[in-house]
Amino acid sequence: MKTRLIIATRNAHKVSEISAMLPDFEVCDLSVIQNPPRVEETGESFLDNATLKAQAISALTDDWVIADDSGLEVDSLDGAPGVYSSRYGGEEGNDAKNNAKLMREMAGLSQREARFRCVIVVARGGQVEASFSGAVEGRIAEAPSGAGGFGYDPLFIPEGYDESFAELGEEIKNNLSHRAKALQGAQDWLSKVS
Amino acid sequence: MKTRLIIATRNAHKVSEISAMLPDFEVCDLSVIQNPPRVEETGESFLDNATLKAQAISALTDDWVIADDSGLEVDSLDGAPGVYSSRYGGEEGNDAKNNAKLMREMAGLSQREARFRCVIVVARGGQVEASFSGAVEGRIAEAPSGAGGFGYDPLFIPEGYDESFAELGEEIKNNLSHRAKALQGAQDWLSKVS
Repeated sequence: MKTRLIIATRNAHKVSEISAMLPDFEVCDLSVIQNPPRVEETGESFLDNATLKAQAISALTDDWVIADDSGLEVDSLDGAPGVYSSRYGGEEGNDAKNNAKLMREMAGLSQREARFRCVIVVARGGQVEASFSGAVEGRIAEAPSGAGGFGYDPLFIPEGYDESFAELGEEIKNNLSHRAKALQGAQDWLSKVS
Repeated sequence: MKTRLIIATRNAHKVSEISAMLPDFEVCDLSVIQNPPRVEETGESFLDNATLKAQAISALTDDWVIADDSGLEVDSLDGAPGVYSSRYGGEEGNDAKNNAKLMREMAGLSQREARFRCVIVVARGGQVEASFSGAVEGRIAEAPSGAGGFGYDPLFIPEGYDESFAELGEEIKNNLSHRAKALQGAQDWLSKVS
């Protein structure tokens, strides 16, 4: 029987990305939890925020819970947008506004190195059991391109490629992404202990 | 060539326990770092404290760094001594005083369930790359016994045994301990990525 894993996120894109990468588990979204709390992401790091989400949800169930926090770190912006990636362009969290703000902030900058970073926290019974960080290096394009993916994918060109994550498509992204790397660690660890 | 791992602790007992459990790595203590900072353990959880130590030391070297924070959680004391385990009996951190205080606090209590918990953080370049929690369930003895181990070992009787960690000796302790479980995760993960 497959071990059940609850993904502590309201982001349907993340649930579907994570499900595709964890075929050995029965991956569920938050709908299996009655009245799941809305967890404020008040942490100063991806690890803090993923921990807040994983602890809050895992305190409500006997199942394993994984939470993800991730974002874009741009070197010439001192690591911004970082933990504010999803609300960089305004509190309502709109991909188009976020991408537009990033373009404005980087106008005229020649140093465009950046990385997507993802931290996955695995928790049970309100307790963090393990965490895994993954990063993919790349650069910020001069203009968005591509219709796939979500978030900053149209602006992020991974190292070794000439196209954005949004152009490269789910399969390539899932293989080389920050989330894939962090999830690989979580999967290996869970396979041994769950 | 073995990957070098720096253990971010001033506790010689921990360095020797961890070295014995990681034969596939070249394990070094803090003496390989020039003027290592003394990191205040101000966190609210083992994960917080291990993160503080691993980040501070890994910012000073290109090597992988692991830090450990661990302690005893006693159910009838609402999880105390927890992050205060090493300074429960006073700021100077004395095993005899810590054990004596635990005996006093638990005098007359029949509920003696407890666990040792250990969190290992693996970091590089100032960044937490992974973390692993391990726990061993047991109970607090009515009186200390045994001369091996350190910390609360003379008072902790692991589940399935009738003797304390201090009586059972290093080999048994290293096989079933909280630190062994957390380190197993770290070792598996590092073997794949380092």
